[in-house]
Amino acid sequence: MAIAAFYEGERRIRQGECEPRPPAADEVQLRVSHCGICGTDLHIFHGAMDARVQMPLVMGHEMSGTVHTLGAGVDEFAPGDRVVVMPLAACYNCPACAAGHSHICHNLDFLGIDTPGAFQSYWTVPANTLHRVPASLSLQHGALIEPLAVACHDVRLANVQAGDQVVVLGGGPIGMLVALVAQQAGADVIVSEINPYRVDLARQLGFEAINPREADLLAAVLRRTGGAGADIVFEVSGSQAGADVMTELLRTRGLAVVVAIFAQPPKLDLFRFFWRELRLQGVRVYESQDFATAIDLAASGALPLDELITDIRPLNALQSVFQDMEKGGRVMKILLEV
Amino acid sequence: MAIAAFYEGERRIRQGECEPRPPAADEVQLRVSHCGICGTDLHIFHGAMDARVQMPLVMGHEMSGTVHTLGAGVDEFAPGDRVVVMPLAACYNCPACAAGHSHICHNLDFLGIDTPGAFQSYWTVPANTLHRVPASLSLQHGALIEPLAVACHDVRLANVQAGDQVVVLGGGPIGMLVALVAQQAGADVIVSEINPYRVDLARQLGFEAINPREADLLAAVLRRTGGAGADIVFEVSGSQAGADVMTELLRTRGLAVVVAIFAQPPKLDLFRFFWRELRLQGVRVYESQDFATAIDLAASGALPLDELITDIRPLNALQSVFQDMEKGGRVMKILLEV
Repeated sequence: MAIAAFYEGERRIRQGECEPRPPAADEVQLRVSHCGICGTDLHIFHGAMDARVQMPLVMGHEMSGTVHTLGAGVDEFAPGDRVVVMPLAACYNCPACAAGHSHICHNLDFLGIDTPGAFQSYWTVPANTLHRVPASLSLQHGALIEPLAVACHDVRLANVQAGDQVVVLGGGPIGMLVALVAQQAGADVIVSEINPYRVDLARQLGFEAINPREADLLAAVLRRTGGAGADIVFEVSGSQAGADVMTELLRTRGLAVVVAIFAQPPKLDLFRFFWRELRLQGVRVYESQDFATAIDLAASGALPLDELITDIRPLNALQSVFQDMEKGGRVMKILLEV
Repeated sequence: MAIAAFYEGERRIRQGECEPRPPAADEVQLRVSHCGICGTDLHIFHGAMDARVQMPLVMGHEMSGTVHTLGAGVDEFAPGDRVVVMPLAACYNCPACAAGHSHICHNLDFLGIDTPGAFQSYWTVPANTLHRVPASLSLQHGALIEPLAVACHDVRLANVQAGDQVVVLGGGPIGMLVALVAQQAGADVIVSEINPYRVDLARQLGFEAINPREADLLAAVLRRTGGAGADIVFEVSGSQAGADVMTELLRTRGLAVVVAIFAQPPKLDLFRFFWRELRLQGVRVYESQDFATAIDLAASGALPLDELITDIRPLNALQSVFQDMEKGGRVMKILLEV
């Protein structure tokens, strides 16, 4: 029996049977193994994206699984192949695609938001979204590849170098993955986070972690950099406080990387950008090479991915998981086992 | 007789005799020929920088002149040499200097603001601030080298390439010079400006110039770029309207260059930076290579510098020139002949 979790409007999830969509040409039908829950899914659950999504919506875009059936013309995969999905479908017809930026296509179809996602037994996707994962990568860890690819993209676009002094503002799942990937690149990383559970977790992972409500983050960064300031600040909090402090923390010509989704335009100290010749770079999702990097990195065993998985729950727990997530507290990444 | 114009507090300029300071070791005393008046000078005249400047202050940092006398140890210049001054003295001891960014030294002495400037008959400066100018460059044009070096710095840091679609927000002296230097680099430039005199001047110089209060700048840029948006926007207006429109005008991964001095932090659409992976770069003053580029470019005759000089007035006209500048209207760059 095929089942799915349907979003049916603000704070309403219904689990029910569904008819899996057979794969069309150049598509593949996957058997879903695990699927992570993203902050964007929570945002949809809150009704904040009702103008964009079509209900009932099957969410879910952080998945791992196996190939089940193949559509016509697909010969590079076989049933049973272990895969993850890069959940982006571009139009290949807009100025962004023409410029080689199809991952931020002007008409992007984000699978699991704009079209059905992976909170279901079988998920049918374009074959060109698939990445194979090696046997050394568990399917639990496979469900972390999508957010890990975000972090790989962000660190790549920031051009993090060995020895760089990096500050990550916000130690949720994405912030923590950015910190880990930057550390893998050789950076010296400080994590700033206000949730005590996440502060402790960052410390367990070996980072200097600062709660800026309790300690002076700027003083710590200046002490660590001989008064110069940080080379790179990743803003993953989406807050006015984050926008304020990132300009204070950076050295001359330092780089602020905007990872967070700012629902409201913050005030930004452009005088400081002028004065210190600071730089800023917005980063969004990932490109195919970032998925490849994420898979290699996760499969290498170099990252403490188990520490980031708070819990693995069945698909019918989705509504209660959202409720746990919105309470904050002792939550990092929760996976659904489908 | 040596004379100087002294700023003595909000809106007060006094002209009087002065005793030229003899050059110490590694210094040179210059005979000032021409000196431009900068927006920063007007800002000082308004009393807005009284907390920073020491009164009475001799302002002026956009100068040309000839070498008059040499301090001990200076052997690379001779009396009569025609020169301009890069008016920055760094501490060479701070993190910015250590990082190779001495032009934005944390303890920068900006000559003419933090220490005496060129609104006087004889100006004594460190020998290492001097750049020789060729005989083909008039001393009137020489007084434009400092603001032209700002434009060369901005265009260099923005990495403007031939064929780039560039928008300059604000067509005052710096904005117009940025537009001209970007055009020399092969860019296709649109100037946005609300002062009708400056709009007309930009058109006379061959630019597409748009008054955004009268025409749709965004529509013009999209039309010109096949819907993609501009590659680079130089924000030279320092206004909330400029901060708003720059994010709308840019293509995916386009670059906003913050040239203006924002007295107040504007709201900035960081969602758009995320969504389109936009970049931003603050730029300030110049480095020695920018002075060299500016001198070569001005001496080549490729730039319509005479069109930018609204008037040349005697030193004792400084107070009335400030009053003309604050009225706005038909003013671009005004030089003092000392």
